[in-house]
Amino acid sequence: MTAKVPTAGTATVLVASNRGPVSFATAADGSLVLRRGGGGLVSGLRPVARSGATVWVCAAMSDADRHAAAAAPDGHLHRAGHDTGGATVQMLTIEPATFHLAYNTIANSVLWFIHHHLFDTPNQPWFDRPFRREWQAYVTYNEVFANALAAAAAPRAAVVIQDYHLALVPGQLRRLRPDLRIGHFSHTPWAAPSYYRVLPDDVGRELLLGMLAADCVSFLSPRWADAFLLCCEALPRADGVRVDRATATVTAAGHRSRVSVHPLGIDGEALRARGHQADVEARLAGLRDLVGDRKLIVRVDRTELAKNIVRGLAAYRELLRIHPRWHGKVVHLAFAYPSRHDLPEYRDYMAAVRQLADEINEEFAASSWTPLILEVSDDYPRSLAAYRLADVLVVNPLRDGMNLVAKEVPVLSDRGCAIVLSRDAGAVDVLGADALVVNPYDVSATAAAMNAALAMDAGERLARTRRLAAAATAVPPQQWFADQIAELNSNAVDIGW
Amino acid sequence: MTAKVPTAGTATVLVASNRGPVSFATAADGSLVLRRGGGGLVSGLRPVARSGATVWVCAAMSDADRHAAAAAPDGHLHRAGHDTGGATVQMLTIEPATFHLAYNTIANSVLWFIHHHLFDTPNQPWFDRPFRREWQAYVTYNEVFANALAAAAAPRAAVVIQDYHLALVPGQLRRLRPDLRIGHFSHTPWAAPSYYRVLPDDVGRELLLGMLAADCVSFLSPRWADAFLLCCEALPRADGVRVDRATATVTAAGHRSRVSVHPLGIDGEALRARGHQADVEARLAGLRDLVGDRKLIVRVDRTELAKNIVRGLAAYRELLRIHPRWHGKVVHLAFAYPSRHDLPEYRDYMAAVRQLADEINEEFAASSWTPLILEVSDDYPRSLAAYRLADVLVVNPLRDGMNLVAKEVPVLSDRGCAIVLSRDAGAVDVLGADALVVNPYDVSATAAAMNAALAMDAGERLARTRRLAAAATAVPPQQWFADQIAELNSNAVDIGW
Repeated sequence: MTAKVPTAGTATVLVASNRGPVSFATAADGSLVLRRGGGGLVSGLRPVARSGATVWVCAAMSDADRHAAAAAPDGHLHRAGHDTGGATVQMLTIEPATFHLAYNTIANSVLWFIHHHLFDTPNQPWFDRPFRREWQAYVTYNEVFANALAAAAAPRAAVVIQDYHLALVPGQLRRLRPDLRIGHFSHTPWAAPSYYRVLPDDVGRELLLGMLAADCVSFLSPRWADAFLLCCEALPRADGVRVDRATATVTAAGHRSRVSVHPLGIDGEALRARGHQADVEARLAGLRDLVGDRKLIVRVDRTELAKNIVRGLAAYRELLRIHPRWHGKVVHLAFAYPSRHDLPEYRDYMAAVRQLADEINEEFAASSWTPLILEVSDDYPRSLAAYRLADVLVVNPLRDGMNLVAKEVPVLSDRGCAIVLSRDAGAVDVLGADALVVNPYDVSATAAAMNAALAMDAGERLARTRRLAAAATAVPPQQWFADQIAELNSNAVDIGW
Repeated sequence: MTAKVPTAGTATVLVASNRGPVSFATAADGSLVLRRGGGGLVSGLRPVARSGATVWVCAAMSDADRHAAAAAPDGHLHRAGHDTGGATVQMLTIEPATFHLAYNTIANSVLWFIHHHLFDTPNQPWFDRPFRREWQAYVTYNEVFANALAAAAAPRAAVVIQDYHLALVPGQLRRLRPDLRIGHFSHTPWAAPSYYRVLPDDVGRELLLGMLAADCVSFLSPRWADAFLLCCEALPRADGVRVDRATATVTAAGHRSRVSVHPLGIDGEALRARGHQADVEARLAGLRDLVGDRKLIVRVDRTELAKNIVRGLAAYRELLRIHPRWHGKVVHLAFAYPSRHDLPEYRDYMAAVRQLADEINEEFAASSWTPLILEVSDDYPRSLAAYRLADVLVVNPLRDGMNLVAKEVPVLSDRGCAIVLSRDAGAVDVLGADALVVNPYDVSATAAAMNAALAMDAGERLARTRRLAAAATAVPPQQWFADQIAELNSNAVDIGW
């Protein structure tokens, strides 16, 4: 957390994200064990990150991370001999109490809830005096990133800052290094203006103005970009922020930002290769034994409030109640992986998921049929096997930046899979035409869509799945990232650089 | 619930509201006791209701009401000899189970929550199969009103339908009696489009199209009218609804509705007269003894989730923590009257109010000073006495159609009263310039506004209070109602009648 004097570094492309492509655990003997992460961001960045000119700046998130970062020169893991898969990773050490408040309290318990519209508004949130200390921690945590980026970036380097954890970094970095080309990318939805204004006025304003210091402010879906523009329009007149909807640009403090959409998709080839490795094949055989010749409905989520698992299970119950013809003929495999168990809302939610799952089996199970199988331990190859085998996929979030599962399943599906998809997932933009789109609050509509999905003609299902797979792979991660860099370059030309 | 064959009645002005101007209780001897209601709607209608040509149609809400209504010819209470204060009141008997589902479940637990943005969204609402039965009860309950109005209305009569309980009545009534001039008035906020779409698509659509069958759709604040227009714009294209923002008109099914704003205010003269009656004076003396020469902060609310009482008390706690100079110098009198105790959310909320009140007194009370007095038993003259004595009024709802307390206090205040007012109360439109306006989620900002209100110079406070009183009485209820009738008449001219 020492403020470095900014110097022009050597990196020409920099990525900043809270979570990096690698993390550490402490082995029984006390030594550090490196783990590689997955996900769209990591796979999108792998090719660029391997070039020596790219630096990936991330936070040390655990004691093991902090030990590894502290032992590496300037936090550069490869300089300490760690194999980061070719990427140049700089892991930032942030004081644990500051990191906790910034990450768990502000980012995940306030900003995540705001953008996903998750608060129990009569009771939460409260913005009181303790909140101010938490907010200050978020400011400090963002500053640590800004200082590190300022020190590492070559003149006019492109810096792409990821997500709601780091919304203030563009403004902080711009003040330190006005020469840089800065992008900010949101992987979440953006709140509707009527929800965004729940935030304290100064906090909501600082977040927007912080992001608007970027040259490009980007989202996964036009609906989130539109919501962002509406929030900018609602800023106090004194800020002098001008929104031009026609060109999707916002001018703040004499600086113009372009607001754009980059709908992250799937690397089809890589996913298909992974989805046919031996570990997946083994689990596929196990699932086939389990399901037999029944239809299979699958859902795969972190147990996250926005994922709407409880209403999804309730829809399955309503399906079985209304359409007894499916009794004994369908199995619902629900993967609900643990998430954020430090928050009581999430523990309560997990308990509600388990309880409803038990109720469904109590109501319908027969000696030869278990209608619902809830799995809460994370097993990636098993998830991929379920993707291949599923007849129906349920993706019914209340609100979701994109939802990559909805894009992965059509790519991996062996025999075609009908998708029941929430209209409030960003993925609906490109998948909506061939999915069965539902209002996520409407349990009955979701049950009806499940029934239609189960009954869908095999030929239609396969044809839809092919179109869904094509749409899902239209912007693979490499392209998604390259588009952002190209946009930063073209934007620089636009404004006279 | 018998569907009457519509016949042209004799009433030229009709009012429909769930709750009427009178209600009944059963005395110990089994006889019915009539009670007169209060509030803006009743006082606004008293003058017109006394003319024989006006009929007020309302629901029997209790067993006593149903007995009274059943014993009166066609539900007309005056024909059974009840003294309705000169108004012609027709009380409709609705089958109790239907009424319960329509009123408690749909109107108060779904529509109220939608328009006030009150749901704990990860867990509520659920729209499942039982919901469909509840919704059907709401349709039926609205039909009972539509049938009664159709039978009672003279040709081309003006019918003003009140509130979210009766949103389908304009459409149902239009089909029965195309000749009528129909208005609908919402006393609540209207949901933002991002919240309104939580409703099942067909339900949200039926409610909007039902209201759009009225000639005038009216709200208490431009912000609620704007939200309604935005929801209309979001209707499926197939409905062919056209919204003209410039003229605030909506055309649906060939029928044009005007969307207008009538900001209900206070009858200053009547309120001042009531506020100086002997019962109020007696309570004023009691309050003076209680408060002594301390400053008095007052709040008066039903214990309603949207009223945001808990955060208001938390703000008072933060005031006392940050500004010890007020210790022993201020008393907060919080009137929190019971409301909707049949709903667990409301019971929990009342418990949270009590607990926080206890915590505040435990933290700060001294032998000679009780910092917070929570009163939960309703006592109207005592409320009026508090209005007169208050130095500071706190009105911090999360969302409120208008909030008449914020308008009543300046009218009654003896020595001037500073108002801390939520920016999401409709009253802020006319009171905002002279109130201290706060974000209701921001406990710290509310505490700071309380501090500024307590410290406000007496001269400024009085000058503000006079301006607030003038603004609050600009549209007294009689005028408010007359404006709506005049608008219905002018609208009829507009469209060629």
